Amino acid sequence: MSELKIEETSTFKPKFSSDGLIPAVAMDFKTKEPLMLAYMNAESLQKTLEIQQAVYYSRSRQEIWHKGATSGQYQKIHSIKTDCDQDAIILYVEQLGGGACHTGRSGCFYREVDLTDKAQLNFSE
Amino acid sequence: MSELKIEETSTFKPKFSSDGLIPAVAMDFKTKEPLMLAYMNAESLQKTLEIQQAVYYSRSRQEIWHKGATSGQYQKIHSIKTDCDQDAIILYVEQLGGGACHTGRSGCFYREVDLTDKAQLNFSE
Repeated sequence: MSELKIEETSTFKPKFSSDGLIPAVAMDFKTKEPLMLAYMNAESLQKTLEIQQAVYYSRSRQEIWHKGATSGQYQKIHSIKTDCDQDAIILYVEQLGGGACHTGRSGCFYREVDLTDKAQLNFSE
Repeated sequence: MSELKIEETSTFKPKFSSDGLIPAVAMDFKTKEPLMLAYMNAESLQKTLEIQQAVYYSRSRQEIWHKGATSGQYQKIHSIKTDCDQDAIILYVEQLGGGACHTGRSGCFYREVDLTDKAQLNFSE
């Protein structure tokens, strides 16, 4: 009896959420620094595999988003990993154009949460 | 004129998706290895901050999921980072109980996608 079929297959069978999206974390292929988290739909993921550059799906604009097409901040794919149940992926990329973040920083995760600040324990959804 | 209010505030104001969830990537605080990606709702994130252990929201079971409560695979929070627009978080954790993944591995991202396999260019949603 095999209970771990999805987990052990070598075939890439990405599992999209009910909204048709899968989260993708881009990381620098050299430093392993996490650069950003965005989403892909099937079309953008296929495009990513085809052109070997990160192509996301913009939830706010509701359209395919070839990162770098307007900013020059392309992400060249070096490798892709998927997780046990294949509902998330990590892109190891070479970040071009100076940085991944629209603020001009190398990556988007530049801000550390103050864990001693009790006031933040009551944020709303 | 400030166009980067969300990006530059030091206040933690997590932005949940329309389904009330925010993706959280757990990484080993020492090795920076990505361990897993899961989701939190406001309640589970508040609980995470309170007990300093990762508490997720299970989308399949539709309930709060205190990781480790049944498996012993607790994740002790060392620090938390959020991204520019605060709609994703990274947890730097000390992974207890042997590993993060239910397959017994240290992390869930153990599988590399074969980028030369053209057959996978036509997966369905």
